[in-house]
Amino acid sequence: MAGGEDSSVGQGVTRRRLIGGAAAGGVAAALPVSASGGSRTRAGGRRADVVVVGAGLSGLAAAESVARAGRSVVVLEARPRVGGRILNEPIGGGEVIEVGGQWIGPTQDAVHEWARELGVETFPTYNEGSYVYHRNGRRLTYRPDTPLLGAIPPDEGAAEAGVALARLNDMSTEVPLDAPWRAPNAAQYDGQTAETFVRENTASPGGRFLVDLGIGALYAAEPRDVSLLHLLFYIRAAGNEANPGNFERLINTAGAAQETRFVGGSQEIALRAARRLGRRVVLDAPVRHIVQERGHVMVHSDRGTVRARRAIVTLPPALAGRIRYSPVMPARRDQFTQRMPQGSAIKCQAIYDRPFWRDEGLAGQAVSDRGPARITFDNSPPDGGPGVLLGFVEGQFARALSRRPAAERRAAVLENFVELFGERARHPLRYVERDWSQEIWTRGCFVGFTAPGVLLDYGEALRRPVGRIHWAGSETATIWNGYMDGAVRSGRRAAAEVLAER
Amino acid sequence: MAGGEDSSVGQGVTRRRLIGGAAAGGVAAALPVSASGGSRTRAGGRRADVVVVGAGLSGLAAAESVARAGRSVVVLEARPRVGGRILNEPIGGGEVIEVGGQWIGPTQDAVHEWARELGVETFPTYNEGSYVYHRNGRRLTYRPDTPLLGAIPPDEGAAEAGVALARLNDMSTEVPLDAPWRAPNAAQYDGQTAETFVRENTASPGGRFLVDLGIGALYAAEPRDVSLLHLLFYIRAAGNEANPGNFERLINTAGAAQETRFVGGSQEIALRAARRLGRRVVLDAPVRHIVQERGHVMVHSDRGTVRARRAIVTLPPALAGRIRYSPVMPARRDQFTQRMPQGSAIKCQAIYDRPFWRDEGLAGQAVSDRGPARITFDNSPPDGGPGVLLGFVEGQFARALSRRPAAERRAAVLENFVELFGERARHPLRYVERDWSQEIWTRGCFVGFTAPGVLLDYGEALRRPVGRIHWAGSETATIWNGYMDGAVRSGRRAAAEVLAER
Repeated sequence: MAGGEDSSVGQGVTRRRLIGGAAAGGVAAALPVSASGGSRTRAGGRRADVVVVGAGLSGLAAAESVARAGRSVVVLEARPRVGGRILNEPIGGGEVIEVGGQWIGPTQDAVHEWARELGVETFPTYNEGSYVYHRNGRRLTYRPDTPLLGAIPPDEGAAEAGVALARLNDMSTEVPLDAPWRAPNAAQYDGQTAETFVRENTASPGGRFLVDLGIGALYAAEPRDVSLLHLLFYIRAAGNEANPGNFERLINTAGAAQETRFVGGSQEIALRAARRLGRRVVLDAPVRHIVQERGHVMVHSDRGTVRARRAIVTLPPALAGRIRYSPVMPARRDQFTQRMPQGSAIKCQAIYDRPFWRDEGLAGQAVSDRGPARITFDNSPPDGGPGVLLGFVEGQFARALSRRPAAERRAAVLENFVELFGERARHPLRYVERDWSQEIWTRGCFVGFTAPGVLLDYGEALRRPVGRIHWAGSETATIWNGYMDGAVRSGRRAAAEVLAER
Repeated sequence: MAGGEDSSVGQGVTRRRLIGGAAAGGVAAALPVSASGGSRTRAGGRRADVVVVGAGLSGLAAAESVARAGRSVVVLEARPRVGGRILNEPIGGGEVIEVGGQWIGPTQDAVHEWARELGVETFPTYNEGSYVYHRNGRRLTYRPDTPLLGAIPPDEGAAEAGVALARLNDMSTEVPLDAPWRAPNAAQYDGQTAETFVRENTASPGGRFLVDLGIGALYAAEPRDVSLLHLLFYIRAAGNEANPGNFERLINTAGAAQETRFVGGSQEIALRAARRLGRRVVLDAPVRHIVQERGHVMVHSDRGTVRARRAIVTLPPALAGRIRYSPVMPARRDQFTQRMPQGSAIKCQAIYDRPFWRDEGLAGQAVSDRGPARITFDNSPPDGGPGVLLGFVEGQFARALSRRPAAERRAAVLENFVELFGERARHPLRYVERDWSQEIWTRGCFVGFTAPGVLLDYGEALRRPVGRIHWAGSETATIWNGYMDGAVRSGRRAAAEVLAER
């Protein structure tokens, strides 16, 4: 096998056999670029050094790393598009909104650098003026420029919530990012739900509301669904080695994970990366069966079978578990994939002729106890041409609303927007929603998480290769787990594993 | 469609169209019996009123109910055998042991009556003499004829454990069996793990050990893995309407779920039921894809496609979620199948020339803190010819041991047997183990359970049909959930649903 059949791409790059891994370190060639963007080619009969399952950010980053090392790679993507949980939606006038992941913030250097290299520019999330707080029918506005939640009146429990979140930050420092199950108190933290922590660390309904809302917003799941240990890991992972994470960096805008947006939409990163990979990326190719044979894998997709030395599966564990494997997965890996469900998010956006809330000194950001959309953002394009209000329907609200008629969901979300931003919100030009739990190739957003007990007994199955199959995807990241940045890092880590093998 | 193509069976039974359900009530024909036991026939091109996926007890009971109503039915079974989690293993001399589910007890009337009707006889579990208790290197024997755990010295925490279990029994009475999520305190109970309850209700290591062991033995999972609400439901479900369950009936032998065994092994029930169903049961036929079309379903298996009016899927939810469905499952059902993992059990049995422990007045039952096999039984055949010691490796012990070499597992389990029953246990004639987590068509025993939060937000997905697809299996039972009895009841309930439809 001499670098695979994919010979129309990779001009000028020395092909090297995957065997003889010592060669890999010496290859520092420019990325092979295909002239053709034709990616609906069949995969059948192809050979490659590496086959990547999934063309989200993780799979594309993995494939790029493999290609840069001079190895051949084929990416099999189930959907007719690349990007996975990252997806642009055109809204006319050349503008787009994102219906999937969209923001980046400080310490998310991997995705930021990659976007810059791909020529995708950034702009700041609109964050001028006051936020809206709405609970028990009481609507307040406040300035977000005080410490976390500090501008909310103490009678609403913000101080109490701040203490609870500070305690979580403190506990998170005990958790090793590459092995949360080895934390000194891992058995205690993984023995309980995040809800149990919240109950023990908040006394007022207002305090509990704020902490619940914050935790729920991380996962699009309820605090009862999530292991406290996973929450601590997730907090700690919201940063890099030099600058470990904290809760504020997860949930805030300024100086945090919602700070920055991409011009042209976040999917532009995936589209440009895929364009460079050219024919290596095969769309409409759901993988059904991965067979490990002596010295290679056979990856069977709806668009044919690829033979490769190694496979990188980038799907969330819940979906990776639905692929058929021969030989079957070992017990620990299989049972792990039974135990990392996806969150439940419906991203709802209303488009208006202009961002009218800005006139009243509002940033478009709000938290509310009403639901279904309890958290909002101003998601207007850079020039603020059309105004876009974004509402997240998460956790139990998403689960309940998912099976209601579309018109009912729309009405309920617009009612939220009216309560928060006034009557002008009632009649948008357009309403766009995306229920990721309904998407066959995602089946839930934002991310896979673990219930109590799972990290302790199955954590090592997250990344440990099974024979010639390696695992990537944002759920496997140790830095910015669950985020675009983690996805990119995980793909590169899996590529490095594969390149280090013979 | 006039009753399906399966015309070689069902002699003398009036075929009726599934349409016109009113006719069903009037059919009280004898069960159609096929002369041929040939069940490796192909399924391809067959038509039936109902297709059943899975030939465990649930699927066989469902199929029998459908056939008794005069409707045609095809059962597609992935394995080359029937029985699912029920499996005999011959040990020579015409004797068998069970490597899967095996016991029944009071109020398990559905499976008991069915076995009787099928001519499968019962005998009492050997339960004479003393039990062994082993903790912190201290070995005690005690008589089990006092109330639950009462014979264990108080300094070992038995009294404390008894209070905690009584409290669980008490709380369980609040839980409606058909909708645990509607219990008055459902949000509180489903917000925490069973471990959180144990931590709050035991003070001594001995007390916690006993309660942990008891809960772990129900699920082959750790108390941290399981929602307190699911535990309360499971306790309450260990009985029938007239005689609701309690913890003692789950874990004890006399008067409880381990009281009675089947002559010839429990799989005999499935084998005889399948023999009566004859060619309706198709083996080696894993179902890959279920397509719902207008007025019927197409069920695609490795042995061909069956067209039917309705389908009954009897797999545990974790496996049902791995079937491909067109159209795709609604969000709630799909995410539910991401959230009901299987427990982790390795059933280990050592066969000796005779049950030597009986000579010393021991029942062969023991609990130990050592692991991997922390619970043992005398599992000798009725005549006590060969002696069989059974050890359960469960939860974290199974997860850790599953990936070790077989010889290491055997040595570790025999070491347990030696500690509990003396040196004669070290050299069995034969050692038999079954790791159900490794089995591709089960992927974990004893049962699927839910982590916190799942019953609240997804409980209704357990049994609610999706179009023409109905759900059975012991995980869906409201009486004796997780047991053979629940499996039988669930199959009949699903059959009744189907028969009630047009």
